[in-house]
Amino acid sequence: MRPDTAGAHVLSREECIGLLASAPIGRIVFTDRALPAVQPVGFCLDGEDIVIRAVEGSAVAATRDAVVAFEADDFDSRTRTGWSVTAVGYARAVSDPVEIARLSALPLTTWVPGGGTLFIKIPAELVAGRCIRH
Amino acid sequence: MRPDTAGAHVLSREECIGLLASAPIGRIVFTDRALPAVQPVGFCLDGEDIVIRAVEGSAVAATRDAVVAFEADDFDSRTRTGWSVTAVGYARAVSDPVEIARLSALPLTTWVPGGGTLFIKIPAELVAGRCIRH
Repeated sequence: MRPDTAGAHVLSREECIGLLASAPIGRIVFTDRALPAVQPVGFCLDGEDIVIRAVEGSAVAATRDAVVAFEADDFDSRTRTGWSVTAVGYARAVSDPVEIARLSALPLTTWVPGGGTLFIKIPAELVAGRCIRH
Repeated sequence: MRPDTAGAHVLSREECIGLLASAPIGRIVFTDRALPAVQPVGFCLDGEDIVIRAVEGSAVAATRDAVVAFEADDFDSRTRTGWSVTAVGYARAVSDPVEIARLSALPLTTWVPGGGTLFIKIPAELVAGRCIRH
């Protein structure tokens, strides 16, 4: 870890992936009708790819074939410590039935009933993370 | 509240502002060198405007004069309940000394040492929120 210009510590790619794997929820960041948009989603990692499930026709489903960011964090407001990790990658919808069957077996929780049948994968092409420790 | 297409409940503007006011941290969503970007920040509300502090020269400081999204949420992974609120507005840097003096008195915590001297205001022009209750 090394300090960044804002006084936090810069995390390595390996640390970032480990922290992403520990997070129960993340946030997909995209553009929706020319406006910046963000939505919390359940997710899991498949290797270093982020996997989410989306409802067909939803704004999240429309992120397929776009460059998106994906963020997870955990902060403790009492100790004022925490971390955040952001991955950026080209989202794609999974269409291969063999891959869909494999992803269906992952421990991927969705937070709303139904939860969506469309699998979207976001490879963590760029990863950046910071942590604050006092 | 009314259910949305994804099974969550849609929050009113008043509920959204109240939940934003309760959150210790939020996330500013913007574009950085043509890529989607997101960064957690301490913030507070000034009426219905989101106020953050940024370090001059940082990516967050560069969001002035851009349309940004601002998101806060709180989820309980045990009960699988929670809420999220997103505001969209035109970010501007505060330059009026009288307004800077007034904003300096707000209970605005920054998480990193230093924390930035530039005040940025994001009016909550568009607000949307959802909650999940089982």
